[in-house]
Amino acid sequence: MQIAILSIFHYFTHMFKKRENVFEIEEGKILSPKFDKDGLIPVITTDCKTNEVLMHGFMNEESLKITIETKEACYWSRSRKSLWHKGKTSGFVQKVIDLRIDDDQDALWMSVDIGNGASCHVGYKSCFYRSVPLGKMENTEKVQMSFKEKKKKFDPKKVYKNQPNPTKI
Amino acid sequence: MQIAILSIFHYFTHMFKKRENVFEIEEGKILSPKFDKDGLIPVITTDCKTNEVLMHGFMNEESLKITIETKEACYWSRSRKSLWHKGKTSGFVQKVIDLRIDDDQDALWMSVDIGNGASCHVGYKSCFYRSVPLGKMENTEKVQMSFKEKKKKFDPKKVYKNQPNPTKI
Repeated sequence: MQIAILSIFHYFTHMFKKRENVFEIEEGKILSPKFDKDGLIPVITTDCKTNEVLMHGFMNEESLKITIETKEACYWSRSRKSLWHKGKTSGFVQKVIDLRIDDDQDALWMSVDIGNGASCHVGYKSCFYRSVPLGKMENTEKVQMSFKEKKKKFDPKKVYKNQPNPTKI
Repeated sequence: MQIAILSIFHYFTHMFKKRENVFEIEEGKILSPKFDKDGLIPVITTDCKTNEVLMHGFMNEESLKITIETKEACYWSRSRKSLWHKGKTSGFVQKVIDLRIDDDQDALWMSVDIGNGASCHVGYKSCFYRSVPLGKMENTEKVQMSFKEKKKKFDPKKVYKNQPNPTKI
């Protein structure tokens, strides 16, 4: 009975290959992702046509497995504390074209097809619609950014209706 | 005296504008980044010529200020627990061309010029040199990736000599 419980525990903590040595992690071919103390790995999502960065999110083991197997982006929502099949509400599903992992296997880069859609809950195509001016700052509390996307792709009030805003202060 | 201590504390905890409401954070022009409980914000670094993702790192308030003002990437190294002026050892400095922040201001996208250099301590141009196969996995512990970069840009043993490898198991 004890062995069975331990096996189940091992299954949930190590769905993917256990990390055993640095050479294998960096130079090997076996997927062995590192999840942080909250069980999450960061994910960079880019547009497969332009390589433009669309969003930065997180996955846990289960959402990574779902993403690989269904070829549709499934994140872990930290604000809702639940699996998040991107596009379930908005219709803006992300079809995964390529999925990469970095040298120490603690970050993912996912290239996706969003057609003519958008990825940002505020309504823009990319979440990164504002640019920070570079150079000496006169006052760090008053740094004025510029908008790089001029027009929203959709109206979030219509798409998300009465759902709570995931942005937290 | 108490007031002086509080002022110093405030300075270190809020170098940038304090986050006060969701509308300003999402739709406003003022930089008001969110640092996590460890004082860090994730950073996506891409090649300014191709938009290819080069690396995923972290900054604290101080390294973000240095990056903005010097226009050269300065991260926070979690393994060394210190400021990390990228390229100080290898010579592969990252000149910042554009710096963006996302909708809820808790992630950065930095577009950099690395000339004909590299960004990965293993020797590749990008840290994301391996691709994960998509579709049903037969055995999650034996997922075989493919190398997308065939040749290293430099020999890390020559460049980093006896420095400890930042990759941790």
